[in-house]
Amino acid sequence: MGRAKKVVLAYSGGVDTSVCIPYLIHEWGVESVVTLAVDLGQGAELDAIQAKALTAGAEQSLVRDAIRELITDYAFPAIQANALYENRYPLSTALARPLIAKLLVEVAEEVGADAVAHGCTGKGNDQVRFDLAITALNPKLKVLAPAREWGMTREATIAYGERFGLPSPVKKSSPYSIDLNILGRSAEAGILEDANLEPPEEVYALTKSVQDAPADPTYVEIEFEQGIPVGLDGERLDPKMLFEQLNLLAGANGVGRIDMVENRLVGIKSREIYECPALLVLIQAHRELESLTLTRDVTHYKYGIETTYSQLVYNGLWYSPLRDALDGFIHATQKTVTGVVRMRLHKGQAVCVGRSSPYSLYNAELATYGEGDQFDHKAAEGFIYIWGLPTRVWSQSQRG
Amino acid sequence: MGRAKKVVLAYSGGVDTSVCIPYLIHEWGVESVVTLAVDLGQGAELDAIQAKALTAGAEQSLVRDAIRELITDYAFPAIQANALYENRYPLSTALARPLIAKLLVEVAEEVGADAVAHGCTGKGNDQVRFDLAITALNPKLKVLAPAREWGMTREATIAYGERFGLPSPVKKSSPYSIDLNILGRSAEAGILEDANLEPPEEVYALTKSVQDAPADPTYVEIEFEQGIPVGLDGERLDPKMLFEQLNLLAGANGVGRIDMVENRLVGIKSREIYECPALLVLIQAHRELESLTLTRDVTHYKYGIETTYSQLVYNGLWYSPLRDALDGFIHATQKTVTGVVRMRLHKGQAVCVGRSSPYSLYNAELATYGEGDQFDHKAAEGFIYIWGLPTRVWSQSQRG
Amino acid sequence: MGRAKKVVLAYSGGVDTSVCIPYLIHEWGVESVVTLAVDLGQGAELDAIQAKALTAGAEQSLVRDAIRELITDYAFPAIQANALYENRYPLSTALARPLIAKLLVEVAEEVGADAVAHGCTGKGNDQVRFDLAITALNPKLKVLAPAREWGMTREATIAYGERFGLPSPVKKSSPYSIDLNILGRSAEAGILEDANLEPPEEVYALTKSVQDAPADPTYVEIEFEQGIPVGLDGERLDPKMLFEQLNLLAGANGVGRIDMVENRLVGIKSREIYECPALLVLIQAHRELESLTLTRDVTHYKYGIETTYSQLVYNGLWYSPLRDALDGFIHATQKTVTGVVRMRLHKGQAVCVGRSSPYSLYNAELATYGEGDQFDHKAAEGFIYIWGLPTRVWSQSQRG
Amino acid sequence: MGRAKKVVLAYSGGVDTSVCIPYLIHEWGVESVVTLAVDLGQGAELDAIQAKALTAGAEQSLVRDAIRELITDYAFPAIQANALYENRYPLSTALARPLIAKLLVEVAEEVGADAVAHGCTGKGNDQVRFDLAITALNPKLKVLAPAREWGMTREATIAYGERFGLPSPVKKSSPYSIDLNILGRSAEAGILEDANLEPPEEVYALTKSVQDAPADPTYVEIEFEQGIPVGLDGERLDPKMLFEQLNLLAGANGVGRIDMVENRLVGIKSREIYECPALLVLIQAHRELESLTLTRDVTHYKYGIETTYSQLVYNGLWYSPLRDALDGFIHATQKTVTGVVRMRLHKGQAVCVGRSSPYSLYNAELATYGEGDQFDHKAAEGFIYIWGLPTRVWSQSQRG
Repeated sequence: MGRAKKVVLAYSGGVDTSVCIPYLIHEWGVESVVTLAVDLGQGAELDAIQAKALTAGAEQSLVRDAIRELITDYAFPAIQANALYENRYPLSTALARPLIAKLLVEVAEEVGADAVAHGCTGKGNDQVRFDLAITALNPKLKVLAPAREWGMTREATIAYGERFGLPSPVKKSSPYSIDLNILGRSAEAGILEDANLEPPEEVYALTKSVQDAPADPTYVEIEFEQGIPVGLDGERLDPKMLFEQLNLLAGANGVGRIDMVENRLVGIKSREIYECPALLVLIQAHRELESLTLTRDVTHYKYGIETTYSQLVYNGLWYSPLRDALDGFIHATQKTVTGVVRMRLHKGQAVCVGRSSPYSLYNAELATYGEGDQFDHKAAEGFIYIWGLPTRVWSQSQRG
Repeated sequence: MGRAKKVVLAYSGGVDTSVCIPYLIHEWGVESVVTLAVDLGQGAELDAIQAKALTAGAEQSLVRDAIRELITDYAFPAIQANALYENRYPLSTALARPLIAKLLVEVAEEVGADAVAHGCTGKGNDQVRFDLAITALNPKLKVLAPAREWGMTREATIAYGERFGLPSPVKKSSPYSIDLNILGRSAEAGILEDANLEPPEEVYALTKSVQDAPADPTYVEIEFEQGIPVGLDGERLDPKMLFEQLNLLAGANGVGRIDMVENRLVGIKSREIYECPALLVLIQAHRELESLTLTRDVTHYKYGIETTYSQLVYNGLWYSPLRDALDGFIHATQKTVTGVVRMRLHKGQAVCVGRSSPYSLYNAELATYGEGDQFDHKAAEGFIYIWGLPTRVWSQSQRG
Repeated sequence: MGRAKKVVLAYSGGVDTSVCIPYLIHEWGVESVVTLAVDLGQGAELDAIQAKALTAGAEQSLVRDAIRELITDYAFPAIQANALYENRYPLSTALARPLIAKLLVEVAEEVGADAVAHGCTGKGNDQVRFDLAITALNPKLKVLAPAREWGMTREATIAYGERFGLPSPVKKSSPYSIDLNILGRSAEAGILEDANLEPPEEVYALTKSVQDAPADPTYVEIEFEQGIPVGLDGERLDPKMLFEQLNLLAGANGVGRIDMVENRLVGIKSREIYECPALLVLIQAHRELESLTLTRDVTHYKYGIETTYSQLVYNGLWYSPLRDALDGFIHATQKTVTGVVRMRLHKGQAVCVGRSSPYSLYNAELATYGEGDQFDHKAAEGFIYIWGLPTRVWSQSQRG
Repeated sequence: MGRAKKVVLAYSGGVDTSVCIPYLIHEWGVESVVTLAVDLGQGAELDAIQAKALTAGAEQSLVRDAIRELITDYAFPAIQANALYENRYPLSTALARPLIAKLLVEVAEEVGADAVAHGCTGKGNDQVRFDLAITALNPKLKVLAPAREWGMTREATIAYGERFGLPSPVKKSSPYSIDLNILGRSAEAGILEDANLEPPEEVYALTKSVQDAPADPTYVEIEFEQGIPVGLDGERLDPKMLFEQLNLLAGANGVGRIDMVENRLVGIKSREIYECPALLVLIQAHRELESLTLTRDVTHYKYGIETTYSQLVYNGLWYSPLRDALDGFIHATQKTVTGVVRMRLHKGQAVCVGRSSPYSLYNAELATYGEGDQFDHKAAEGFIYIWGLPTRVWSQSQRG
């Protein structure tokens, strides 16, 4: 008997996941492979992909559009959390994995599969994200990861596919390893592995260079309700439209590039290039709105929550009781994060040039140095006496 | 008897601190005022300032150059701490206050004063920083803050000064409240109090606008030793020279502006504009070098240390046992933060385009997806089994 | 005109709050004083107290029973938070203050008062707790604190009261400052101020000494539902009954004493003696149940939440957006904290001797070293390889 | 060729590690086994153990006394860190592992071995602690763990040993898995795996039960210098003597038992019984001294450091840059943790009944409610105004 009877395979249409189909059947004794291709805004031709899976031996080839769900159920909570892994990376790929896993599990339960499969290798973060999400959603399902075990080079993989009628890829493959969805694009490997080398312009696809960006700035007003972006420039927008428009606006102005050396869950450092135009602008604008609407102690405590949240998502623990609990904290803080933030997009930078909110805690009457000052200046002395008391006692004790 | 016999006054040469001199003598019965003007790179004409204090009635008028000390003893530790208050403000003003306080206390002890005085009002952070630093360094010294109590408008203040021979200021005063030293410049008040208004270009003094910055980028290589910047473009530089050069390079490319609504210690939010060209570039470069040289767990734990460190400094607790302890942590991490970071300064942005270190933990042989891969791929399965075990058990328990 | 027209005064029946009544009227020009005495289980004779306020000049004398509310709305969330200030003090007094403040504000709004008043002095935590809670609930109400300003000694206070017909207290007052409610009892001041002195037995009122406690242990089973204690020894109990019974059981066995030097909000250290028999046993039992039902990462993250929660409550920030947010976290974790904990109460100690839960994550099949072991031992190697990889790379880099 | 040529084996004299000797030689092709037995106060007969290793086929059988080193280099820093894993377990076993690993690596380097070995199985924490410590100290050494792979039952293990002349154990083995050193004793497995069962008295070896403990208390004064215990009852003591005496005193009074369900690194929960009489009393006393000598902000920040420190040690990361950095923090705080703590040991409990320090920050003149009060009561009002300002603004904004 094989490793599983019926398997639902996460399918991209590329060589690696295509080869998984015959491999699962012929090497691991799987009786039936159902493929699932998920549209997350990566711009793939889904009809062609669907057909290709059948050619490769899949019994059934399914396609799902999940762009809207990716934004509302995964990106929006991450924006409320200002989630930036290692203060930089807005988790564009990491957020997509638990959604794909959820769809795999749903399909597996529908078609009566006893396993799901993915094409990840053993060194990346994605294998962990898939495996853990699947386990969390249905611990009875087996998870198969052929590419983690087969140890074939790219050439061997192509050759193996040809034996089962899979055509050799026409285009020369990218020198980089690319992942793309509506939240962003990541590139790694190849010459990018030299952390001391400036990435060549060809690495980028969604953003202009500073040189090529327009000489004049673009202004955009982003409207938030309870921490969720709901409109641009005064127009209420569907989440998908909002991301598409903002990706274009920001990308055209060179906004959204990240070049970093990051710490992977599996214990190694890797150099990554990301482009996340809309997502980065939204997180930045969201933070500006929070600077008006959250109290200092909430703001400061939330920093730690945000750091943990982003690590959790990066590490594949989207479906976990700790994320539930962190979300409990975050949701309580977002009730008043409503208002409008004005951003200037210009030559690679997004800069906030205005924020306003009906729930603003910024109080010009308290802050002003001009007339109308309502602050009780004399209170300061009493405050400083008590605020400084531990320092005074400590200082005295040091002097004996 | 007056509030004190002999007072050392922190003196800037401006109207407010000048008026403090007769005020201390005539209103508060102080017998002798010694002024101390500290050169922190603010570009003041110290000879004129020195003379002015004597005109205003000071018994003694002292001047100290403390630029180098400001950089080495205050800015360098802050760079090692990547200290950014509320993730944005590199504490350019906050770092100067404990140094001025230290010099005040030293002079007070030298001249036998029983009090020190400063010209801060009751609503800002600086009064707290002065009072606490002085208390920490010598809890026996009284601290006098005339402007916190006198309640005079600017006009009344000028009129009061004229009664004691202080000339009315010739130049129309800035519409903004400005503080400047070699670490940066802050502007607040006036129309900046409208948090929804883009600051006019006249607010800025150290940095070009994106429009006016050169079309071509400037590259600069920054060399660090144990977390301390020691050279630029291959040349070893004295700390003061390094800051001056980097302030010019970055400022000319429009790098270093910050526009934020921040939470003051005294419980209010205020809108602040900062320009810190060199300091911001150095912190950013330092972080990049740490991304190569610190382990993940140190990096992630240090985030919390950095947040607390910056809050502490912002809140006037530079001289405190908690900063000592945080520095104990930070110093232990900086032993290997040695190497070179290459930054591109361009149109308002500093971007890291290369990092290298003899102590780099980035290991191309482990990270690579190409040949020479030394990572044990099969280990991943065991890792994921154990890493995911709590999730699996939790998921099973949810399903009963 | 006086400081306020109509004032609602928190009233205990003691000398200090009684004297506040004439003081508010005669010194501060208040037209009408309404007193509010709240029954929190302190065992006061409310009829006598009610009459006494009228004697002292109150226009209206109100009494409220709030024992149940204190337990369900204040103590239960604190138990879910395992709230122990500085790891020791379960906040028995601190939890009562926001409830009294809430009742004061409610009454003030009912009777149309423009201010509320309390009898706290300027050095304790309670003044801060009252003032902040009142501000949070109704920022338009003035808060008056006569005892913070009047500067009378105890003798002068009594003499002042006698002028207005208040009888001098018959009983010699306690040498300690005592606060009592159903959650616990605190004692401070007097000889307790010597932190190097063992408290005399007379300080204690709710708990037996170890010597006097019975030779044999008492066992009690505590049942929790979603983190809330709902029954003892198999019997479902009303919250008030549950606290009363458990206070007796634990107190009789000497359980619940705390002797500590704590850090007050106002910057000083103070030595405090607490007795909180039921509350301490419940927190301890709750933690044991969480050790079964929460995952490791939730448990470890919750430690920090708990610390901040207890500091917040101690510091008077019960009504604050940060507590809301922390509660959002905590509530999410309590869904499965259901089960039974068996405690042995004996000679001053409570020890858990059994825990069980339908949602237990403790899995004997995984933990066992005996037969039936389901743990995949071989996974350990892969796990350790990856878990140790950063250490390995770091160690190699140290050796050059 | 075998897995290694020359191996240094951590040797206890028990069946499992004895069987490792022939196993390494005959199954894994090791040419030479050198055993190392370390005396950590476990009361083993080292001469007999030394002989037994040679009988079992070891080429060389070494013994080292490391009791003092265990206390001074491992337990003392942990006491300064108040290190309690999950707030309970003082890491008595976890602290010994990195020391044994260090001695193994030293011997391996002396005798020219290419590997070290230990007898741990795949489910515990100790395997991780050994493997990581060895990797950290010498990443070139292989680590062999035969028991993790062999999969033999206890009976099979004994039978395998008999084939190579190892005598079958005479005594019936303990029903529990025991680890013992001068810092404490742990027991697990057997009926202890039922978390709902009170442990039978036979589980305990170092501590009396509450019933059997003396009716009268024992008082002990512990003297600390810079956070290190240096004497008992006025007598300066060698670290080993101090631990031995305090283990006896506390154990005789029933102090030092812990019964908990803990979260292991390898993702499972386990039920553990510990006895750590001296170590627990010392940590408790150390905390009391810190309550006098550390400022509030240091105390509160140190809680998080302590939690991370204990997790790190538990998880085998003793030799790691993060522990170095945490120690940097901790050391800075211990300079003034000098003084005397008086503890009452009685019927299973240690209670602090007095603390004093030349560096005490507890200031009776500030804390007192009696005469001599030096606290500025009027400052409270200003303090509360500013402390409560964010709450006031927030509350106003909620009301629109």
